[in-house]
Amino acid sequence: MSKPRLGIGMVGYAFMGAAHSHAWRSAPRFFDLPWDPELTVLCGRDRDAVAAAGRRMGWSSVETDWRAVVGRDDVDVVDVCTPGSSHAEIAVAALEAGKHVLCEKPLANSVGQARAMVAAAERAAAAGTRSMVAFNYRRVPALALARRLIGDGRLGQIRHVRAVYLQDWIVDPDFPLVWRLVAEQAGSGALGDIGSHIVDLAQHLLSDRIASVCALTETFVKERPLPRTASGLAGVGGGEQRGRVTVDDAALFLARFAGGAIATFEASRFATGRRNGMRIEINGSAGSLAFDLERLNELQLYEAAADTTGGFRRILVTEADHPWMSAWWPPGHIIGWEHTFIHEIRDFVVAVGAADDPQPSFAEGLGVQQVLEAVGASAAQGVWTSVGEQ
Amino acid sequence: MSKPRLGIGMVGYAFMGAAHSHAWRSAPRFFDLPWDPELTVLCGRDRDAVAAAGRRMGWSSVETDWRAVVGRDDVDVVDVCTPGSSHAEIAVAALEAGKHVLCEKPLANSVGQARAMVAAAERAAAAGTRSMVAFNYRRVPALALARRLIGDGRLGQIRHVRAVYLQDWIVDPDFPLVWRLVAEQAGSGALGDIGSHIVDLAQHLLSDRIASVCALTETFVKERPLPRTASGLAGVGGGEQRGRVTVDDAALFLARFAGGAIATFEASRFATGRRNGMRIEINGSAGSLAFDLERLNELQLYEAAADTTGGFRRILVTEADHPWMSAWWPPGHIIGWEHTFIHEIRDFVVAVGAADDPQPSFAEGLGVQQVLEAVGASAAQGVWTSVGEQ
Amino acid sequence: MSKPRLGIGMVGYAFMGAAHSHAWRSAPRFFDLPWDPELTVLCGRDRDAVAAAGRRMGWSSVETDWRAVVGRDDVDVVDVCTPGSSHAEIAVAALEAGKHVLCEKPLANSVGQARAMVAAAERAAAAGTRSMVAFNYRRVPALALARRLIGDGRLGQIRHVRAVYLQDWIVDPDFPLVWRLVAEQAGSGALGDIGSHIVDLAQHLLSDRIASVCALTETFVKERPLPRTASGLAGVGGGEQRGRVTVDDAALFLARFAGGAIATFEASRFATGRRNGMRIEINGSAGSLAFDLERLNELQLYEAAADTTGGFRRILVTEADHPWMSAWWPPGHIIGWEHTFIHEIRDFVVAVGAADDPQPSFAEGLGVQQVLEAVGASAAQGVWTSVGEQ
Amino acid sequence: MSKPRLGIGMVGYAFMGAAHSHAWRSAPRFFDLPWDPELTVLCGRDRDAVAAAGRRMGWSSVETDWRAVVGRDDVDVVDVCTPGSSHAEIAVAALEAGKHVLCEKPLANSVGQARAMVAAAERAAAAGTRSMVAFNYRRVPALALARRLIGDGRLGQIRHVRAVYLQDWIVDPDFPLVWRLVAEQAGSGALGDIGSHIVDLAQHLLSDRIASVCALTETFVKERPLPRTASGLAGVGGGEQRGRVTVDDAALFLARFAGGAIATFEASRFATGRRNGMRIEINGSAGSLAFDLERLNELQLYEAAADTTGGFRRILVTEADHPWMSAWWPPGHIIGWEHTFIHEIRDFVVAVGAADDPQPSFAEGLGVQQVLEAVGASAAQGVWTSVGEQ
Repeated sequence: MSKPRLGIGMVGYAFMGAAHSHAWRSAPRFFDLPWDPELTVLCGRDRDAVAAAGRRMGWSSVETDWRAVVGRDDVDVVDVCTPGSSHAEIAVAALEAGKHVLCEKPLANSVGQARAMVAAAERAAAAGTRSMVAFNYRRVPALALARRLIGDGRLGQIRHVRAVYLQDWIVDPDFPLVWRLVAEQAGSGALGDIGSHIVDLAQHLLSDRIASVCALTETFVKERPLPRTASGLAGVGGGEQRGRVTVDDAALFLARFAGGAIATFEASRFATGRRNGMRIEINGSAGSLAFDLERLNELQLYEAAADTTGGFRRILVTEADHPWMSAWWPPGHIIGWEHTFIHEIRDFVVAVGAADDPQPSFAEGLGVQQVLEAVGASAAQGVWTSVGEQ
Repeated sequence: MSKPRLGIGMVGYAFMGAAHSHAWRSAPRFFDLPWDPELTVLCGRDRDAVAAAGRRMGWSSVETDWRAVVGRDDVDVVDVCTPGSSHAEIAVAALEAGKHVLCEKPLANSVGQARAMVAAAERAAAAGTRSMVAFNYRRVPALALARRLIGDGRLGQIRHVRAVYLQDWIVDPDFPLVWRLVAEQAGSGALGDIGSHIVDLAQHLLSDRIASVCALTETFVKERPLPRTASGLAGVGGGEQRGRVTVDDAALFLARFAGGAIATFEASRFATGRRNGMRIEINGSAGSLAFDLERLNELQLYEAAADTTGGFRRILVTEADHPWMSAWWPPGHIIGWEHTFIHEIRDFVVAVGAADDPQPSFAEGLGVQQVLEAVGASAAQGVWTSVGEQ
Repeated sequence: MSKPRLGIGMVGYAFMGAAHSHAWRSAPRFFDLPWDPELTVLCGRDRDAVAAAGRRMGWSSVETDWRAVVGRDDVDVVDVCTPGSSHAEIAVAALEAGKHVLCEKPLANSVGQARAMVAAAERAAAAGTRSMVAFNYRRVPALALARRLIGDGRLGQIRHVRAVYLQDWIVDPDFPLVWRLVAEQAGSGALGDIGSHIVDLAQHLLSDRIASVCALTETFVKERPLPRTASGLAGVGGGEQRGRVTVDDAALFLARFAGGAIATFEASRFATGRRNGMRIEINGSAGSLAFDLERLNELQLYEAAADTTGGFRRILVTEADHPWMSAWWPPGHIIGWEHTFIHEIRDFVVAVGAADDPQPSFAEGLGVQQVLEAVGASAAQGVWTSVGEQ
Repeated sequence: MSKPRLGIGMVGYAFMGAAHSHAWRSAPRFFDLPWDPELTVLCGRDRDAVAAAGRRMGWSSVETDWRAVVGRDDVDVVDVCTPGSSHAEIAVAALEAGKHVLCEKPLANSVGQARAMVAAAERAAAAGTRSMVAFNYRRVPALALARRLIGDGRLGQIRHVRAVYLQDWIVDPDFPLVWRLVAEQAGSGALGDIGSHIVDLAQHLLSDRIASVCALTETFVKERPLPRTASGLAGVGGGEQRGRVTVDDAALFLARFAGGAIATFEASRFATGRRNGMRIEINGSAGSLAFDLERLNELQLYEAAADTTGGFRRILVTEADHPWMSAWWPPGHIIGWEHTFIHEIRDFVVAVGAADDPQPSFAEGLGVQQVLEAVGASAAQGVWTSVGEQ
């Protein structure tokens, strides 16, 4: 009656680590999983800090070198929650060691790294080892419903996408130069961190791919105080020394989809008052959708009406027949941002159990990376750029 | 370094049981608690069902008689998640056995039962045993912020309260006669189930009490199919036999607060399209607040402005300095309905650890019960009724 | 080819006078009317003031005694825009002189006055003289659409009405004692001024009547500065002398409709931050509606859906097939509050031209007055009161 | 005491003609103007149609040749409401004849035409003859308030603009090929018709100019039924013959402002469900604004708060101290789309009376035209294009 255990080793324990830990703990309590996930080992470079995090978040042991995690026999899954610069190295090693891999987004900091990861994933898949990139917003029920409606043709032919991801956490010029603002670690700024989400989502919702882009990027605040600690996790108000911001504060681009839709995209950390404003709006020949992450339980749907009462309607996506929602509460009892990770873990474990490839694959992650790279190239050169030509 | 354990015994494992279990598991992962809660024993009458629930929800053992739970030495806290008709018996026995008690709302099905519980709670408190009634919406961060703002005088003198709790799950006349529609088990209908929430909240937000009420209640659908199962947990579409609905479908009342505010209250299960629409609006001499549970991360605040730009502003209550929110995610990453239970458990355990009486006390639960009873009496007799005079 | 003229005499030239003047001027420019309204004479007691108003608002002549207006041969319609205390006298005299009468709401300050007006209207109707009470919100396109939807059965059987009319223009205790706060002139306070609107609307939308009520009224600020001018039109900040406020600041009541619906009503001038917040929400067995006057071009409609995508939808009531809207602009180009008067004038003139009785009739105005009187009686005595029994 | 008359001659009597006529009639009723506008002559090519329109809209006479209007001694102002292709010819002739000119937007169909108009306007101004281009949305009170707030520095340094103008009236592929879809008459499609509005507004709100753009345009439906009538005013469902659509259905572009702000712009007639959705959002270093034309009485304002209660607040822009609003109704009584024209006429006549140049000038209209031309060039060539270099 008891299920086989699935040993999890997680690398990284900050923001994403906390979200993933909660999801690993909670998924089996709400969903019927084929395996029983066990929080086997948590990995971080600072022994005391990782030990404290492990205790608080419920991990059975800790390591300070990710290679040790990859080498452990009691680890079946490696969950990569580090900055993008180390994704490729860890994920490839884990796959080669026969560990299933769940890797945070964006897949990597460059197309080159992403390609290596895809190659490793394909080799591993042949041996039954699974991999997945953690674009968690695919698991927002309202967005999964949106994809279903588009797939069912309810919107007709898609003409327009307008997607923004607006935050404002670095508007203060004295906010310090944390790792997310350093190109070597983060790859890019708003573009990779939050722009990657809207690129993935748009491609996923439309089941289409972005073919070409024209972009601009901007860094409004060029220098910032260096953080007081080596880890770069200091809060507002750094030291007196300043360093150069080497990533974009905002990235804007026009896009053409292969299927004919046209789009605007915008990712910014300078949209004062918008804390986590990922909004996406899609217009088709027969209907439209609108979504806002700050109200993630809601989907706005417009369908051309037979009578005089047409209008955008607010679907409260909390019904038992909405994606993943039968596991949760009665209708109208909303879920939070963290639930997207629980759904992601659920789908990952179910796929692993069924010997299926979970989605989104590393190849899809590479697809996003190619768009990001085209955006970067277009912004640098001021011309329209085809995706995949770099 | 490790914390003392706190053995939890929970009676009931349906809707509230699942929410509480998640909260017991999750609270120590996000908050620094003085004790380490252990999911010791889950109790339900159907052995197979409770065993399955216990496994799924992470309980170490199960019992089929709540008396066994109360009698166990490894249980420090009894969490009462049963229908209201058994609250008094279980809670009083648990308190007499020296167990701290967390009891679901409403406290009881009658003022008489509630009084007995308050008496037991007062005797127990003298011996250091704590009790709390689980009005979880006090732990919505937006509502805790609302109370803080009112307490700070930001709204001036309160003049108006309008509170509704609107659901629609029994609009279909073929929805079966579940226990919540049977007076012997539920005490009342919409009034006790959801009306109790808005009564408690209004009194809590204003730090005031309802002094008198004038009410009407209505049962729109008088008979319903009997559920197919003894447990009364059947879904839509019962058997052919019908039984009489003995509770209210909707309860409406006017109220005067002791401090001078006037109010309308409405609780209904027949508000088609409103799944979980608890809305509360408060007007004071200097400002106003509005809240909607379907958007529980938001609080609307109006303050009389010095200039020409006054207006209701939407506070996204996800900042680190908002109540409980430093434990969660970065600003703009919303939480869900279930988090109210995690906050409740956090506050309960902290109070127990500090040898404080957690809030809301059983006495506050009795206060709500007295309002409900006055509403029932007013509706029956068609006259204004003072609270506490029954 | 030219149309017969319809001479208009209007009594009163303040707020309502300006709105009606604009409507008389504009209606023939957008609607095809059977008569050509002519702004013949404007009447007010202060000769200089009325002369200035007449010039500004486009009236051909002025009078200072309403009896002169009623007696003029070139006047076919008397439009009564005075405070409620003089409605009965003017309207009855005008009807007896064979003038069609459009009378501002509420019809009168008492049921007795209203009865006399209804009797006069019935006598006049026998001779082809028409009368109408100006509940202009019936001519909000969104509300006319709402009535059509309810009449078509789209909401099923109506169970709930919750209607509020919230303003805040006298929250400041130094706002002066203008005529609207004096019982002799205004009859009542929030109840008659704005409560009458929601009573009329609710009865009109449901095609039903309120059968009984239970009410409370409150006057939060008991004394106010006397206005500096005799006319009572002074702004904030009156003189040093204070007088007693003799009307209600707020009126709240529960109601039962003859057809079985139950309702809450609230009219207040102390809802800080709500400038003109008339909101009405209706729940039926098959659907629901919600409306807010501050967004008067929108109607929220919920219909039980066949699939999983149900939700309240926002109808932007600006389509050519929406009531009156074919006369205006392309879809999405919103209209304002004043358009309700233009629609009202249009319907009045069309009815007069067709020798029909325009709606709402004085009898309907009396019906509203009876509800208001029952509310007043219930509030005074603290008991449920049947409408019409006073 | 009576004011000097101002004789108006208007060319064109369709959509814009109706809006302008209403404004000419209404402006002197609500605002204190230095001149008294007289609706002297209406001009259109079809004698019967223009005669009917003139009667309905209150014009004293009609002409069928605009040259006759320009030549009349009783005409002081020529109001140009024709398609863009004839703006230059009429406006230049009128200015040369010493008539003040109000010209509908966009100023012209090309930069060349616009330059000629600016030259004529400058020559005329030297002789005291005034000219203005009718970008009416500058006279939305909420947007005038927005400009005032930005000008006062309330938003700090502006970083982001995102502006869309979304309509859906030609989504149906059988909607006929009306003049607005023909390049010879309309110049461009969504770009010039509605894109011009958001370009003007953005530049006006920021008091800045767009320096460079990168654009794409798209025509989703390439052929449409020819309209059944020569005038091109047929409704949905044209004849069997089809013609080529020669304008854009949608235009999207990125922009850099001279002052450093970056922006996305989108104008589309294919945004299903958006009837008249002009939305603009601006983020600065200290605050943000958001506006939606479908709720034109509202402005959303965010200001970085000193405490924990920051949020976007909804200003209902209906207070007496809001731009133009003291002329209208009490707070909370909303105005409609057409009021923007009344405000525009008010400002135009006041400027003429004060011998001032009204705003926006033809030079500002040329500025918009230069942006539109840069957009067209950029879309054609796929490169970033500086404004003014064509």
